[in-house]
Amino acid sequence: MAGTVTVPSASVPSTPLLKDELDIVIPTIRNLDFLEMWRPFFQPYHLIIVQDGDPTKTIRVPEGFDYELYNRNDINRILGPKASCISFKDSACRCFGYMVSKKKYVFTIDDDCFVAKDPSGKDINALEQHIKNLLSPSTPFFFNTLYDPYREGADFVRGYPFSLREGAKTAVSHGLWLNIPDYDAPTQMVKPRERNSRYVDAVMTVPKGTLFPMCGMNLAFDRDLIGPAMYFGLMGDGQPIGRYDDMWAGWCMKVICDHLSLGVKTGLPYIWHSKASNPFVNLKKEYKGIFWQEDIIPFFQNATIPKECDTVQKCYLSLAEQVKEKLGKIDPYFVKLADAMVTWIEAWDELNPSTAAVENGKAK
Amino acid sequence: MAGTVTVPSASVPSTPLLKDELDIVIPTIRNLDFLEMWRPFFQPYHLIIVQDGDPTKTIRVPEGFDYELYNRNDINRILGPKASCISFKDSACRCFGYMVSKKKYVFTIDDDCFVAKDPSGKDINALEQHIKNLLSPSTPFFFNTLYDPYREGADFVRGYPFSLREGAKTAVSHGLWLNIPDYDAPTQMVKPRERNSRYVDAVMTVPKGTLFPMCGMNLAFDRDLIGPAMYFGLMGDGQPIGRYDDMWAGWCMKVICDHLSLGVKTGLPYIWHSKASNPFVNLKKEYKGIFWQEDIIPFFQNATIPKECDTVQKCYLSLAEQVKEKLGKIDPYFVKLADAMVTWIEAWDELNPSTAAVENGKAK
Repeated sequence: MAGTVTVPSASVPSTPLLKDELDIVIPTIRNLDFLEMWRPFFQPYHLIIVQDGDPTKTIRVPEGFDYELYNRNDINRILGPKASCISFKDSACRCFGYMVSKKKYVFTIDDDCFVAKDPSGKDINALEQHIKNLLSPSTPFFFNTLYDPYREGADFVRGYPFSLREGAKTAVSHGLWLNIPDYDAPTQMVKPRERNSRYVDAVMTVPKGTLFPMCGMNLAFDRDLIGPAMYFGLMGDGQPIGRYDDMWAGWCMKVICDHLSLGVKTGLPYIWHSKASNPFVNLKKEYKGIFWQEDIIPFFQNATIPKECDTVQKCYLSLAEQVKEKLGKIDPYFVKLADAMVTWIEAWDELNPSTAAVENGKAK
Repeated sequence: MAGTVTVPSASVPSTPLLKDELDIVIPTIRNLDFLEMWRPFFQPYHLIIVQDGDPTKTIRVPEGFDYELYNRNDINRILGPKASCISFKDSACRCFGYMVSKKKYVFTIDDDCFVAKDPSGKDINALEQHIKNLLSPSTPFFFNTLYDPYREGADFVRGYPFSLREGAKTAVSHGLWLNIPDYDAPTQMVKPRERNSRYVDAVMTVPKGTLFPMCGMNLAFDRDLIGPAMYFGLMGDGQPIGRYDDMWAGWCMKVICDHLSLGVKTGLPYIWHSKASNPFVNLKKEYKGIFWQEDIIPFFQNATIPKECDTVQKCYLSLAEQVKEKLGKIDPYFVKLADAMVTWIEAWDELNPSTAAVENGKAK
């Protein structure tokens, strides 16, 4: 039978879960007033703020939060020439925060995301739900029709093979959005008034072999298990494309999780996404991506990682090679992106020498 | 953008949907008093009742329902020696009803399933939801994080390839159960008091390449698209196994849907499952299946159907061959089952000559 994860059920646990093992990464260009609303849930945790755009601007952080803040000058100073792999003027810069974190878990959230309410009207502690998702196993190898079998009141249904009921380690927890849904520019334009008001009370594992669109707005992951695959690519200033940073990370990450038998969940928790970005600006950023993804998706659907790749880093470098070879034909951008993927791994290993050593040791 | 299916939203549509194109198939051993509760929803439709067990017993059907009833004598008379493929003393006999139906759609329900209520307290018209599911496309090739993109108020999210937004034809709609969950005997024994009270307001496509445990309690399908794959196998009297009838059909059906690019949905609608079957009796029926499924699942996960199989019948016969060859090694039962699968297709084509002709014509 499935064991349920015993996690306090109150919205504000008396001892915050994983308090010293989780960083909250926030990319921003403005004062972080949105944190006021999250104070009861986030204050016990350490924040890593990645300031995008003009580094001379001062970002105000509400009092009482424990944080470190990096602007572009900091990124350049810390990474030197390898800073070229971190996007500028795009929220893709958030992945720098993943790299400098020293914790096992990361939760990342956009600064236009507020606390949502569940159908009973109670504030949703999004972080607590992500932690529950990450601490309980996933079921990537077979589909359970009653959703998460590890949740209280649920289990595996008749016909679910017993040998698969231990599940897999969960690497990623992808949360959803009430109010403004995460639509692309064409959909935004056609449905400017559409709001998401449906609260679907479920967490599910994205099955092995299935790709999905991972949104970076409300996302948590296990850095030790999958961190080096969470590179948000080259977007924004000087790049021909934007708004595909999280998608790119999601596709790379999923192929690697499938290879390493790790699980990826989507569903709860919801956040309240407060405002739609400008669809005209978005269209400009997205339009090449809209064409390119028609080739990118089949590429990732067919990508296979050699058996001998037994660390995330090795898997990622193998993917980078395949990106250069196969997607490089579509546009020179992908050659540049493939090189940046390699630089990212070099920078990751430089800043995380112990993991790199462990990983390399494990690999030998 | 996704088009939404325009279907009347009232629980009791003034003109019942697909009134002349859908049969309700019910396997039973008792009087069908449960139909009283379903009267507002089922009365406009034609019922096919498959009487299991003693054919001399009279099954009472509440007044006002339009039905045909088949007992074992009828099955033997209609199918002759081919009747051997229809199970006896097991609800697997329901698939005889699929075969004799002359309609495009079939909904099948167990006689211990009652009308459930949605969270607002309204009676759920399960049949109407199944019809909505069948009439709108599926999305087997890529995962949409906001669930069914064709539902009102929803759409495809950012990063969903535009070329895949037409979706695939939906062949199967698998509904769920409130109250008594569909657990196997071991889980029933360990959790005798577990009840499902979680209403998950979602319909999702089971992704291509992913198997799931299909339950026959609350199930609808498009007979024209997938009917011949809906064989519930050899269970019950004289067989070494029970309670794997729907599972077997689900695994065969899913492999064929994946091959033919058809969609399979699960989620809404819920029915109220009134009583748990006896776990001790269930264990006796299931225990060989519990072992065997550890081999059956990998078998279906790795089964490939030759490209030239372009009808459900051909796909099914190819699977039967593979079952005999590969699962026959586990137990002689699978050789018998593989033969029954062939008999089933012969019987299907005999009773459905026009489809068979069309299919054969199409195949040439």
